[in-house]
Amino acid sequence: MARFIAEMTMSLDGFIALPDDSIGGLFDWYDNGPVAVPTARPDMTWHVTQASAEHLRRTMSTAGALLVGRRIFDLTHGWGGQHPIDCPIVVLSHTIPDGWPRQGVPYTFVTSGFQDAVAAAGKLAGDKDVGLAGPDIIRQALDAGLLAEIRVNLAPWLLGSGIRFFDHLRAAPVKLERTRVIERDGVTHLHFNVLRRPDY
Amino acid sequence: MARFIAEMTMSLDGFIALPDDSIGGLFDWYDNGPVAVPTARPDMTWHVTQASAEHLRRTMSTAGALLVGRRIFDLTHGWGGQHPIDCPIVVLSHTIPDGWPRQGVPYTFVTSGFQDAVAAAGKLAGDKDVGLAGPDIIRQALDAGLLAEIRVNLAPWLLGSGIRFFDHLRAAPVKLERTRVIERDGVTHLHFNVLRRPDY
Repeated sequence: MARFIAEMTMSLDGFIALPDDSIGGLFDWYDNGPVAVPTARPDMTWHVTQASAEHLRRTMSTAGALLVGRRIFDLTHGWGGQHPIDCPIVVLSHTIPDGWPRQGVPYTFVTSGFQDAVAAAGKLAGDKDVGLAGPDIIRQALDAGLLAEIRVNLAPWLLGSGIRFFDHLRAAPVKLERTRVIERDGVTHLHFNVLRRPDY
Repeated sequence: MARFIAEMTMSLDGFIALPDDSIGGLFDWYDNGPVAVPTARPDMTWHVTQASAEHLRRTMSTAGALLVGRRIFDLTHGWGGQHPIDCPIVVLSHTIPDGWPRQGVPYTFVTSGFQDAVAAAGKLAGDKDVGLAGPDIIRQALDAGLLAEIRVNLAPWLLGSGIRFFDHLRAAPVKLERTRVIERDGVTHLHFNVLRRPDY
């Protein structure tokens, strides 16, 4: 069964974006190293540290599907029809965006709610991971006890205000278990297992 | 001149306490390891991992003074007149608490504002560090461009709500430089230098 993993880049004060949805310097680490990491997009190659490259390659190779919210989909313009990670994408949305779905683009739009989106992403991922992006999606997965792992790419910034990675959690407090720390210039990759309540 | 360093224990979602000022499992790491670290209080010895012990000993040996807010002072009942770290303490407050100051207890109460408290703590610390605790104090130090370093003891919890380490920053965005990561079971010690605007 697929494992559900939340991964986002976050400032030290907990933000994934500024109030206007821009990201300031949060993503600097994608372009501050000597190692070229090609993505599924011909126009996009990351240049990162060796440690970040290993982290990214692992994420890319284990992702069986991505489950994202409509806001990120709109902000990225649907990644121009090709996400950097080469896997099917499930978009949870109230409505299907104009012009979608498109021939040859493995995006699935689910308008019937979170549980159906989870089922669709899980089926697409098979035995691989489902990567979750977007605070609303991640909050719902946490509240539903569905999230197995959280990966935070901690960027060396205080943004002061904006959109938080974690907000309005109903299930909290949630105990975590840190499993991995990858530290390099410009970013700290922190991995945590989400422990179930009976475990603590 | 003294360096001003903010250090607090924070959950992954940015909280230093729950809404009722309790700390949940945030401080578990002070009692989850084999190494005994005596404090300045005869009734308090921490039991931590070797890595956390080194972190704590370094903090204790470099602290020349602590600058704290009235809220923490009240919540801890003034540490019973003896803070675990053996150094002078400056409390920024609107009023002097009943029963203070006390003979033989090196606590200074400053009621004339943040700048005066900073000056008092800096003078007491000499060439050592001034440790800052309390979100309001830390916010003011950041906004004043005074903070040299931030040390976050990242606890493996999502608290969901409560009191944030960083809140209402006016000076943000602030660029940081991660200088040190100490990872052990139960806590990740993350150290950042605060970069001045002309530097980035």
